[in-house]
Amino acid sequence: MKIIIVGGVAGGMSAATRLRRLMEDAEIIVFEKGPYVSFANCGLPYHISGEIAEHDSLLLQTPESLKQRFNLDVRPFHEVISIDADKQTVTVNTPSGQITENYDKLILSPGAKPIIPNLSGIEEANNLFTLRNVPDLDKIMIKLDQIKSGHAVVIGAGFIGLEMAENLALKGLKVTLVEQAPHVLPTFDLEMARYVEAELTSKGVEVITGQSVTAFHEKGQVLELSNGQHLASDVTILSVGVAPDSQLAKNTGIELGLRGGILVDQNYQTSQKNIYAVGDAIVVKQEITGQDTLISLASPANRQGRQVADVIAGLARKNKGSIGTAIVKVFDLAAASTGLSERTVQSLGYEHAVIHTTGKDHAGYYPGATDIVLKLIFSPTDGKIFGAQAVGQKGVDKRIDVLATAIKAGLTIFDLPELELTYATPFGSAKDPVNMIGYAAMNIAEGISQNIQWHQLDEELANGKILLDVRNPGEVAKGQFKEFIHIPLDQLRERIGELDASKEYIVSCHSGLRSYIAERILKEKGFDVKNLDGAYSLYKMALPENIIHP
Amino acid sequence: MKIIIVGGVAGGMSAATRLRRLMEDAEIIVFEKGPYVSFANCGLPYHISGEIAEHDSLLLQTPESLKQRFNLDVRPFHEVISIDADKQTVTVNTPSGQITENYDKLILSPGAKPIIPNLSGIEEANNLFTLRNVPDLDKIMIKLDQIKSGHAVVIGAGFIGLEMAENLALKGLKVTLVEQAPHVLPTFDLEMARYVEAELTSKGVEVITGQSVTAFHEKGQVLELSNGQHLASDVTILSVGVAPDSQLAKNTGIELGLRGGILVDQNYQTSQKNIYAVGDAIVVKQEITGQDTLISLASPANRQGRQVADVIAGLARKNKGSIGTAIVKVFDLAAASTGLSERTVQSLGYEHAVIHTTGKDHAGYYPGATDIVLKLIFSPTDGKIFGAQAVGQKGVDKRIDVLATAIKAGLTIFDLPELELTYATPFGSAKDPVNMIGYAAMNIAEGISQNIQWHQLDEELANGKILLDVRNPGEVAKGQFKEFIHIPLDQLRERIGELDASKEYIVSCHSGLRSYIAERILKEKGFDVKNLDGAYSLYKMALPENIIHP
Repeated sequence: MKIIIVGGVAGGMSAATRLRRLMEDAEIIVFEKGPYVSFANCGLPYHISGEIAEHDSLLLQTPESLKQRFNLDVRPFHEVISIDADKQTVTVNTPSGQITENYDKLILSPGAKPIIPNLSGIEEANNLFTLRNVPDLDKIMIKLDQIKSGHAVVIGAGFIGLEMAENLALKGLKVTLVEQAPHVLPTFDLEMARYVEAELTSKGVEVITGQSVTAFHEKGQVLELSNGQHLASDVTILSVGVAPDSQLAKNTGIELGLRGGILVDQNYQTSQKNIYAVGDAIVVKQEITGQDTLISLASPANRQGRQVADVIAGLARKNKGSIGTAIVKVFDLAAASTGLSERTVQSLGYEHAVIHTTGKDHAGYYPGATDIVLKLIFSPTDGKIFGAQAVGQKGVDKRIDVLATAIKAGLTIFDLPELELTYATPFGSAKDPVNMIGYAAMNIAEGISQNIQWHQLDEELANGKILLDVRNPGEVAKGQFKEFIHIPLDQLRERIGELDASKEYIVSCHSGLRSYIAERILKEKGFDVKNLDGAYSLYKMALPENIIHP
Repeated sequence: MKIIIVGGVAGGMSAATRLRRLMEDAEIIVFEKGPYVSFANCGLPYHISGEIAEHDSLLLQTPESLKQRFNLDVRPFHEVISIDADKQTVTVNTPSGQITENYDKLILSPGAKPIIPNLSGIEEANNLFTLRNVPDLDKIMIKLDQIKSGHAVVIGAGFIGLEMAENLALKGLKVTLVEQAPHVLPTFDLEMARYVEAELTSKGVEVITGQSVTAFHEKGQVLELSNGQHLASDVTILSVGVAPDSQLAKNTGIELGLRGGILVDQNYQTSQKNIYAVGDAIVVKQEITGQDTLISLASPANRQGRQVADVIAGLARKNKGSIGTAIVKVFDLAAASTGLSERTVQSLGYEHAVIHTTGKDHAGYYPGATDIVLKLIFSPTDGKIFGAQAVGQKGVDKRIDVLATAIKAGLTIFDLPELELTYATPFGSAKDPVNMIGYAAMNIAEGISQNIQWHQLDEELANGKILLDVRNPGEVAKGQFKEFIHIPLDQLRERIGELDASKEYIVSCHSGLRSYIAERILKEKGFDVKNLDGAYSLYKMALPENIIHP
């Protein structure tokens, strides 16, 4: 069998090596239009700062090593420019002219390409870069060598934008990050993204949200924002998203779907016989909603590459879709998510509840414990978990991995307290944050606790509810809500007479634990009371302008 | 309602605080025979070395703070000496004499106590300590202050024994660890425990396995081992296991089970009406086998405490049993496990397969990546996961947590590659070690790969099989099997003619990845070949005496 693979990075190379392990005698050719195959795509930003010091450590394999180990015929600088699906041939531009190769099976793994918006002056900007591959990185490195220091602007605060902002700052540049959405990390919910913004700001990165770049002036040295503001830039990174690189597929008559993504069946077969596709370019099912989606992440691409090899080798495999799990490091903070955001669940109209908890990455009395803020979006009726988000310095990846596994397995909130996770003081707590958020979610589902979200507080107060802050006086003195009454938790039982049982109350403390205890005391005494989820600390993070510093 | 709780640490205190949150008006009394309640049991060893510097940071709550916040009546130095189950009263020794209290509901959370073997001279040993609570710790600290330095012997290399060995060594003592089992961490499998032994040895701890202490001489200054060897000891820690502290329950006529553990139903009810029990003292179901077991871990105790409170408050809860997940830090290494060991699965007669993989905690090209050796025990027919073990410097807790969640959820090996785990270069790999071990297990289940274990190699070779080492010459020169033929992987295709197709082969490399590729090449060419699981590195760890250093 002769198999041709178009694209020699994540999906393509996973397919090629797995195919060889299953089919020793197959002829396997990998065409890669760029100079490198099997490079460390996700590591590219870290070479900017020197965190990954050696350029060549990003090159994981060479055509020679792949020939030697896997007997693969890997050809860089070979761009497949057309496919004849009937004749089963591809036409390829090579360094020594055009060639045609026939195939029995063809795998497309073209990936996604950066979106370049059509903005005034963008063509003339000579300091504007995107980052998709090693040549892109090399161009940026040359530019940075030229300017040494100066002002960098990163347009788009998704994963790559954040990593670029961090690494440019670590390199010594003054960095401004511009994001069109109301907050960085547009796929996250606002209040969680705010922790990342705070980390960026504390490390000297200027963050501008809710603004887009509308024009490039002076060959890109000056950027104009939608609010009219001008930004000077010595080097600009454009990272406003990616789109499936599906032109070749389109020209071949392959059916495309959502935003030009290649449509495939559960076996990765396209609409054309013997042509398969994997990776960032294909449309996949969002497992939780069942809707079409595009996911540009290395893990699914690698899995799909291996699976399509299995399919071609005759093994039963199905693409089951993706729930979407992602993480980004931003200086000393990590932010991770799995499944759906609150905003997405809201827009889909699913009945849902939300909780935020704050816990330590390991036992608080063991040195070095740091906070993890964890968010869970779930169904209060059947306990189905829609999604989770977390921010913190350590242990964020672990908690989201556990929750991603729980979602994938169809576990509900009622199962989370039952999870038996590794515990010794250096690693966790007897009740891990994942167990704890399970308990908290059960309290909501069973009506033991009721909460409101930070974005609901102002309206609730306007409707006549009373905010009871149960923090200690020292905490209240440092920062407070605009209107509230104050009874420290440990005085609540004796001072309960100060409250008016005919009123409706909302309780808050610092992070939500004490206010939950207060809520329970008041509920047991017959009060109508709800807990401000995430309490003062989350509200302050989301709406700092509403906080008073006496 | 009046509820009495016997035991004021993990299970008891979880029950007390949850009860208060659910029943504001209940009378809740906690009797604790020791001086402290709600102390950080699992943190005790770390105060020895000063890693946890402040003694009082181990005291998480006081009777005063619990009164103030939870309106609990918590009484240290109160030992319940008898229970009248018919009259529903307890008799309590207090600092000011004996009292009797009645109850509506009684919760027993007595915990487990260290096993003290009946050995010659043990009564006279005045430098022998166990570690269960803060007073035990205080006694050890006083002793260490007296001797300043010297020789410590730790008897028993379970979790507490290992933590004590580490912390005594960090304190500056010369430490010898004596374990009766053939390896440290008796609940682990031998080859995985060997990594821990190597870490202990490299940090200066002397490890003696397969030997027990048979006698104490000279008031404990000299210990005699089963092989006749004598060990000098300035301070000896006895940590040979724990047993349910169930004498009070027994005296009350409560039915006991396995090794004296208190029998409870799924609602934690004992055989006596209105008496419940939780924590280390109760018999639970091993979820995977359905057998009775005892689990002395903080996490289940805390969960049970909360659940019994829910049950008493009228909420529907069931003890679903435990799969058993644990972790221990030993200097710079972590060792973790979940579910059943290979040895247990073997002894139960379950059809099973085993694989070991070695992967990085995060992308190898990002600074600071370290190895994780991961072991999976599973059914090769239906893919059921029986258990997993892991050792490594970082990320061990995360992988075992994910696998523990997978086991709890009933996922199979076929689901592991599908798990969508957080990936960015500082946190993981596009194919996480958990995904990879899923792929490897599928290869076994689907017959794409066949393996043998390290303990089977010698017999296989004796039966005429040939060991083919596919490492590079430089690796082979540093250490090798006793008998083998050598063809580096990248030369295998051209030199395949050197092999005899009528023979049966076993392939090995360093950690099993290259040998798997060699296995596939040879299988595709019609050879009868199996992979030495874990390859040279694992075999060497398990059987160092069988390795030749040319």
